[in-house]
Amino acid sequence: MVEPATATQAAAPVMPQLKDELDIVIPTIRNLDFLEMWRPFFQPYHLIIVQDGDPSKTIKVPPGFDYELYNRNDINKILGPKASCISFKDSACRCFGYMVSKKKYIFTIDDDCFVAKDPSGKAVNALEQHIKNLQCPSTPFFFNTLYDPFREGADFVRGYPFSLREGVPTAVSHGLWLNIPDYDAPTQLVKPLERNTRFVDAVLTIPKGTLFPMCGMNLAFDRDLIGPAMYFGLMGDGQPIGRYDDMWAGWCIKVICDHLGLGVKTGLPYIYHSKASNPFVNLRKEYKGIFWQEEIIPFFQQAVLPKDCTTVQKCYVELAKQVKEKLSKVDPYFDKLADAMVTWIKAWDELNPPTAGSVPNGKAA
Amino acid sequence: MVEPATATQAAAPVMPQLKDELDIVIPTIRNLDFLEMWRPFFQPYHLIIVQDGDPSKTIKVPPGFDYELYNRNDINKILGPKASCISFKDSACRCFGYMVSKKKYIFTIDDDCFVAKDPSGKAVNALEQHIKNLQCPSTPFFFNTLYDPFREGADFVRGYPFSLREGVPTAVSHGLWLNIPDYDAPTQLVKPLERNTRFVDAVLTIPKGTLFPMCGMNLAFDRDLIGPAMYFGLMGDGQPIGRYDDMWAGWCIKVICDHLGLGVKTGLPYIYHSKASNPFVNLRKEYKGIFWQEEIIPFFQQAVLPKDCTTVQKCYVELAKQVKEKLSKVDPYFDKLADAMVTWIKAWDELNPPTAGSVPNGKAA
Repeated sequence: MVEPATATQAAAPVMPQLKDELDIVIPTIRNLDFLEMWRPFFQPYHLIIVQDGDPSKTIKVPPGFDYELYNRNDINKILGPKASCISFKDSACRCFGYMVSKKKYIFTIDDDCFVAKDPSGKAVNALEQHIKNLQCPSTPFFFNTLYDPFREGADFVRGYPFSLREGVPTAVSHGLWLNIPDYDAPTQLVKPLERNTRFVDAVLTIPKGTLFPMCGMNLAFDRDLIGPAMYFGLMGDGQPIGRYDDMWAGWCIKVICDHLGLGVKTGLPYIYHSKASNPFVNLRKEYKGIFWQEEIIPFFQQAVLPKDCTTVQKCYVELAKQVKEKLSKVDPYFDKLADAMVTWIKAWDELNPPTAGSVPNGKAA
Repeated sequence: MVEPATATQAAAPVMPQLKDELDIVIPTIRNLDFLEMWRPFFQPYHLIIVQDGDPSKTIKVPPGFDYELYNRNDINKILGPKASCISFKDSACRCFGYMVSKKKYIFTIDDDCFVAKDPSGKAVNALEQHIKNLQCPSTPFFFNTLYDPFREGADFVRGYPFSLREGVPTAVSHGLWLNIPDYDAPTQLVKPLERNTRFVDAVLTIPKGTLFPMCGMNLAFDRDLIGPAMYFGLMGDGQPIGRYDDMWAGWCIKVICDHLGLGVKTGLPYIYHSKASNPFVNLRKEYKGIFWQEEIIPFFQQAVLPKDCTTVQKCYVELAKQVKEKLSKVDPYFDKLADAMVTWIKAWDELNPPTAGSVPNGKAA
């Protein structure tokens, strides 16, 4: 049985220099222990909390944290009619936090995720590993059998082409979960007792042309490189689907990263996922997605972006166009989603106007 | 510092039922400790030793092993003029053993590889893990973030399409190395002290469309599914190149597996690689390969096999044709290699004539 780290096991943060470069985005905080457990790691950084439910309820943030909190009223006030692209009563609303942040790196985490321990019993500094992943290159064009060649004690193996060893900038770092694995409702129902106890000490680049199921529970990204594509879609209140917010973003960012020559890493760091969500509720939210993904995934596998899509925004608007053309026949929901994707980009650009000398999203500085 | 397991730590083999299904192919044995160390694991199985050097020298096999030994004279006698496709004075000659075997599974290993220990100190049964890898499906069409979904305690994660969960038959299992990593000569020269001490507890499918550097040090495959493509090329005596035998086979098998819908896994099991080969000698063998691979890899990345290539042999002969057409301009060596590829298939089919009711290579029974 795996267990989370205790508060005293949590090491001091090692990256105070990142204070001005990193925001932590949390969709909502129902669990009061959550911030206490992460205090040694999170306290040096700025938190953006996006409240997913009733705005009249108050989220209690313990003293000592530097944070800003947005509820639905705030989102409506800031975005006006464009607030329609932000989900309500669903953790997908977290992407509003990505939009209002002004930092280079975003780390997003759910409030039922705690500090994991590595096999030696040491508390895992998830933030530190994510930043390491994002700050060293990815290798999407050829597989390295010793995993991330940029980790200490590893390198490119015999037969790895030298021309590819420079790698490409890493845009996304996808972390994993000990204890409760991120299963869909059918698997939760069939294997209620399964726990993930295997600590796999690896980080790897997901190869170009390969899609993956991106989970938003423990995720970091370079906002400058890929931010405008990290849209978590329309989920929850008034929508026919839930629990596909992060998946949708994952398919979109992977196609765009492949097109722009950016990398996506998965593996370390682990967090400790404390409780499984209700599989019956999940099944209700998921069942259309389970059906639709059989058509959505081939769509993304075949999606080709034209050469003149040279920024994330251009790629994303083009992808929205293709979603409208090819997925609206699956369900009218995709027509609405494609419109919301365009609205999202308009809202992003409104809140993040280009400044003199700034590099467009998707380009490494 | 990692250390190999001692003989007493080596557990008893757990798969006596595989006696009739598995051959162990060893290119040569210069190290007398080698078989003693592996005795508890290898003794139940049949060994095929292919002597890479001077036929007048005798390889000493300790008592108790069931083996057959081939030297150059034997190869010439059995294959006649077709023996020209088998390398001399190079461990690439091991592929002759794949051809003469009549078993379903092949495990091949170098004589400087010993039994590794897992993090708990237990001896790793490499054979058992390879067979597990080969006997459960691969998932090349979509990446599973918890790695091999068929391992105990793992499954497909949320967002993995249900239609792809059946997977495809696994043709190749590529194992890794603790202690001395499999580096090219330049990396050996630059990092003479680097040791691989990281035990990554994972098996994963290399996605469709992604090439990898396949190392022959610790490799298993399903001979029925992919055998005729496991040709280790022309290396060593009289050839302009060495140390690319396994790489060549790896590029060929991956393109063919992708075409035929077969899977390639990498990761566990580890062996303990005891000594680094001489980097100066390696550089001499490798330097043309280091240059050529910059053109060879794009060639394999772009290679498309026509639909009527429905068996491994047909795929391989087609690939030989494309090598002749597109790589001969890199060096006349590839013209010779393309001819040898065709000779290899003729020799394979001569030694392995189809029998009534047999399934062609590349088709799961």
